[in-house]
Amino acid sequence: MTDRLILHEYAASGNCYKVRLTAAFAGVSLERREYDIMKGETRTPEFLSNVNANGRIPVLQVGDRFIPESNAASYYVAEGSTLIPRDRFGQADMLRWMFWEQYNHEPNIATLRFWMRSVGLEQLHDGQRQQMAPKRQAGNAALKLMDDHLGGCEWFVGDGLSLADICLFAYTHVADEADFDLELYGNVIRWMEQLMTMPGFIPMDA
Amino acid sequence: MTDRLILHEYAASGNCYKVRLTAAFAGVSLERREYDIMKGETRTPEFLSNVNANGRIPVLQVGDRFIPESNAASYYVAEGSTLIPRDRFGQADMLRWMFWEQYNHEPNIATLRFWMRSVGLEQLHDGQRQQMAPKRQAGNAALKLMDDHLGGCEWFVGDGLSLADICLFAYTHVADEADFDLELYGNVIRWMEQLMTMPGFIPMDA
Repeated sequence: MTDRLILHEYAASGNCYKVRLTAAFAGVSLERREYDIMKGETRTPEFLSNVNANGRIPVLQVGDRFIPESNAASYYVAEGSTLIPRDRFGQADMLRWMFWEQYNHEPNIATLRFWMRSVGLEQLHDGQRQQMAPKRQAGNAALKLMDDHLGGCEWFVGDGLSLADICLFAYTHVADEADFDLELYGNVIRWMEQLMTMPGFIPMDA
Repeated sequence: MTDRLILHEYAASGNCYKVRLTAAFAGVSLERREYDIMKGETRTPEFLSNVNANGRIPVLQVGDRFIPESNAASYYVAEGSTLIPRDRFGQADMLRWMFWEQYNHEPNIATLRFWMRSVGLEQLHDGQRQQMAPKRQAGNAALKLMDDHLGGCEWFVGDGLSLADICLFAYTHVADEADFDLELYGNVIRWMEQLMTMPGFIPMDA
């Protein structure tokens, strides 16, 4: 229970913010190790063999073991807190939104943000450029689905803040950096504002 | 505990097979409702408003509530069985592989299989055609990462069969249908053969 937790991360990544925000809400302490992904610091032989063979951050270090994948690392950090519903349906429903985030939300909204803000439009190769329009369409479809869902409830799962909200908040609240117009999604805005008032909230640049 | 479980599915989908295989290993009964995705049966107004606003299968119906996303539905079915590790690290490690499957494996291997076997190469539009080479490269990278991992262990998590194995098996064992050469990945083959001998195993077309 007293394993030291170290977050291997790149602070500007929304995926890394998920783990920090979960820890903040759950009152869990994390040490932080920063890597510059733009300089390839997560693709070095040392990183690949010692931290994550997949060459990606975040990775949560638990003692001398490692948990890659932002949503799995957040799950570890949240365990025992109210961020994970206690009932069987609620747990599966929470995971449903977290898997949906990785398949329908992150590859569109986060990838466009990364291409536009970190890589730079003029640096994209043709294959990436051709994916921009379909990713924008799919990203707006994801935001619309969230907005419709939130038309009928305060939080994504049950009646309280859960990991599903945290994992969806991370890239939604910076979707404007990929030129998504969040003003179109009033329920999403109301939900984000509500999340930011919850005790323990920290902004992405904290 | 006695909620009736109905799987809304398309039997040829590996994502749907995950849920059936989980139920078979866990000894859980499922009713099955078949939809023909090639005829748009999961995009009808009825399906979108009653089953899944995302227009996808599988969806697990639990009484009068619904769980979309194959890995979340499998999680619900597996709860209380040995397919979910009991320890905190093991649970997060299992989810790590399940999130990785949705991000790094399924969009490459399953999508190529769908394009090649269901849609048909001659029906693909240019955007899809241009993604074939990068998806093949990423799919092989995913298989290589699995093979490397299985060089050091029998199962993906801990020392027994878990949901991580089931969710990764579903599209790996039919990767040859997308022209991936599984013979290149000897540890993966050994792991698949081992999984197929476990009590309760059912093939995809059962």
